[in-house]
Amino acid sequence: MIYLTRKAEFSASHYYHNPDFTPEENQRVFGKCSNLNGHGHNYTLEVTVKGEVNAKTGFVVDLKDLKETMNREVVDAMDHRHLNKEVPEFKKLIPTTENLAIAVWNRLQPRLQMAKLHRVRIYESPDLFADFYGEE
Amino acid sequence: MIYLTRKAEFSASHYYHNPDFTPEENQRVFGKCSNLNGHGHNYTLEVTVKGEVNAKTGFVVDLKDLKETMNREVVDAMDHRHLNKEVPEFKKLIPTTENLAIAVWNRLQPRLQMAKLHRVRIYESPDLFADFYGEE
Amino acid sequence: MIYLTRKAEFSASHYYHNPDFTPEENQRVFGKCSNLNGHGHNYTLEVTVKGEVNAKTGFVVDLKDLKETMNREVVDAMDHRHLNKEVPEFKKLIPTTENLAIAVWNRLQPRLQMAKLHRVRIYESPDLFADFYGEE
Amino acid sequence: MIYLTRKAEFSASHYYHNPDFTPEENQRVFGKCSNLNGHGHNYTLEVTVKGEVNAKTGFVVDLKDLKETMNREVVDAMDHRHLNKEVPEFKKLIPTTENLAIAVWNRLQPRLQMAKLHRVRIYESPDLFADFYGEE
Amino acid sequence: MIYLTRKAEFSASHYYHNPDFTPEENQRVFGKCSNLNGHGHNYTLEVTVKGEVNAKTGFVVDLKDLKETMNREVVDAMDHRHLNKEVPEFKKLIPTTENLAIAVWNRLQPRLQMAKLHRVRIYESPDLFADFYGEE
Amino acid sequence: MIYLTRKAEFSASHYYHNPDFTPEENQRVFGKCSNLNGHGHNYTLEVTVKGEVNAKTGFVVDLKDLKETMNREVVDAMDHRHLNKEVPEFKKLIPTTENLAIAVWNRLQPRLQMAKLHRVRIYESPDLFADFYGEE
Repeated sequence: MIYLTRKAEFSASHYYHNPDFTPEENQRVFGKCSNLNGHGHNYTLEVTVKGEVNAKTGFVVDLKDLKETMNREVVDAMDHRHLNKEVPEFKKLIPTTENLAIAVWNRLQPRLQMAKLHRVRIYESPDLFADFYGEE
Repeated sequence: MIYLTRKAEFSASHYYHNPDFTPEENQRVFGKCSNLNGHGHNYTLEVTVKGEVNAKTGFVVDLKDLKETMNREVVDAMDHRHLNKEVPEFKKLIPTTENLAIAVWNRLQPRLQMAKLHRVRIYESPDLFADFYGEE
Repeated sequence: MIYLTRKAEFSASHYYHNPDFTPEENQRVFGKCSNLNGHGHNYTLEVTVKGEVNAKTGFVVDLKDLKETMNREVVDAMDHRHLNKEVPEFKKLIPTTENLAIAVWNRLQPRLQMAKLHRVRIYESPDLFADFYGEE
Repeated sequence: MIYLTRKAEFSASHYYHNPDFTPEENQRVFGKCSNLNGHGHNYTLEVTVKGEVNAKTGFVVDLKDLKETMNREVVDAMDHRHLNKEVPEFKKLIPTTENLAIAVWNRLQPRLQMAKLHRVRIYESPDLFADFYGEE
Repeated sequence: MIYLTRKAEFSASHYYHNPDFTPEENQRVFGKCSNLNGHGHNYTLEVTVKGEVNAKTGFVVDLKDLKETMNREVVDAMDHRHLNKEVPEFKKLIPTTENLAIAVWNRLQPRLQMAKLHRVRIYESPDLFADFYGEE
Repeated sequence: MIYLTRKAEFSASHYYHNPDFTPEENQRVFGKCSNLNGHGHNYTLEVTVKGEVNAKTGFVVDLKDLKETMNREVVDAMDHRHLNKEVPEFKKLIPTTENLAIAVWNRLQPRLQMAKLHRVRIYESPDLFADFYGEE
């Protein structure tokens, strides 16, 4: 049983705003992130899959397939985008690092066939990251 | 003569758009960066000052002063901001990494007293950066 | 269930010395680290908390609170300090990376309310780190 | 119970080739990695051991011993080597990151005495790594 | 006058061998690098161009062009290759980091039109790199 | 003409104190760094030498020689040491990053024979470094 992790990067804008909050609450809870002009990050995505090593190839997963799936489902959909305005999951959901990790899991999990998705990690910056293992 | 460099980080949004270009030209020249919803980056700023070492302190520059100047003139003004919409230099100027390095130089140069500004480096991502030495 | 990790840095001095050892034993067991003049490191602290995402905020934990707690309980107490001489836990305990991870856990665990402390990781250098999960 | 991780680096060549595959299959499955002239990487090895902290030393493991074991069993055997041609495990096994993690586990596990081997992580590049926990 | 730097990565094999040296000399001068089975690295290439900022675009150089030139002239030619066996410059020249920086300069310099090539930096590992500025 | 750079790391303690200053001045000028118990850092040293490539070896400098010189003159003398108490240059001189870069230059410059010393860079942390080129 091997765990294989591949990274990818994308750059996006976002802001944090709850329409049920008063302006003061949005400011108090979200601080600088509540600026509706948006701000942005270079996100780093780490996808970990888990499986047995195929004796013929030495691979847990076809890396080219994994890369294409990550690009198609996540990078192409989010890179150089405004998460609140252009990524459907965040029409209503606040695009925090936590919710972004869950959204990426939900995009990837149904499309991985050879190996089982184990963990999605999203770095918003080198100093802050969220991990989701599919746990309810 | 010593060159001292200090780093800082800020996160901001931007887009590339020249109003004199047709939509097709903007798309061709700026590609994904022309998306008017904006996208963002974790920028890293490196400021290098040059001077002689003060024999009493061992310093080329008071690091606390340098940090405060960098924070006041650059980080506070740009962090969690939309460069095109909220930073005056980019009302007309396109906020490329190149222009951002020049803008930061112009903000810092008049405010540094103890040591001479030598170089401003801006990383838009770990793979792309611009250096400005104040050369015309 | 999301795991959120935040980093912080601090710089400190320490040495390794067991007063019950002979000088030869201290030298043999601790090598260069037994130098009583002390040496130092840029430590990196990673704190991971675990919890459910709050539907109103998208947060597992209030990041400002987490940062303040980490600063107050760890960074302010250890940054630019001599661990053996100025941090009470190490009056008797040897300030190895292992014991430092446990000490940080014991400082943070009672003060985190919104989310559960999951892991404390301390890097003594980029090449050496210790993880503590609160396991006896 | 503390988990201690130590890193080491080595540089090696390898290629991916299954003699039971046709040339076309080797090309299709392994792509650029199937070039029999070989290509290479700066590998990073992370070894994590698990154990209780020794009250007399503050250590989970004697770091000098751990370093010597890692150097003798892995770095000296693989650094500046061609994995397919000079490392016995890969006479028949394809030296993928996955198989390399398992091979390193099998080399280290019988030689660690003070602490239990918990995880072997191999980075083939900063963007790709494999973890092995000894799980069948 | 702005200096813009872009990075790229490639993985390759090489060895150091001077056919005019005796085996003992090759071993003494080149050490582990003289192993004719080859070993490899993840190389990082940094290309710096210098020029004035175009007022219409804010660019010193068209980044897409620069990336394509770097990929075509360097990455595609060297990635997953054996430098001694597959890259013509190294049929006779020893593929040291120094010679690799010069070879990359000679490949790029005639093909850059918008901006002037200023520096080629090659990292053989995070701890060793060579810079070439085209100086005789 | 090639510039070759090699890195090394060492960990040391220091404090900043000018005996001609009052306690208040030491506190005002040096802040947290004035704590006489000392604090420490993982320093990174980058040494750049400049020269022509030797046609027989492809080297600007014998890397083994350079490494040994750096280890003997700097790393062995400073690693796991207290700069103020154990490194002669800092008996009187304040061990700032600036003065440390000059001290390292003065140690290395007379001992390098094959190539000319071009620059000494010292990182006190990833966010602060000093460069010395031997300029008066």
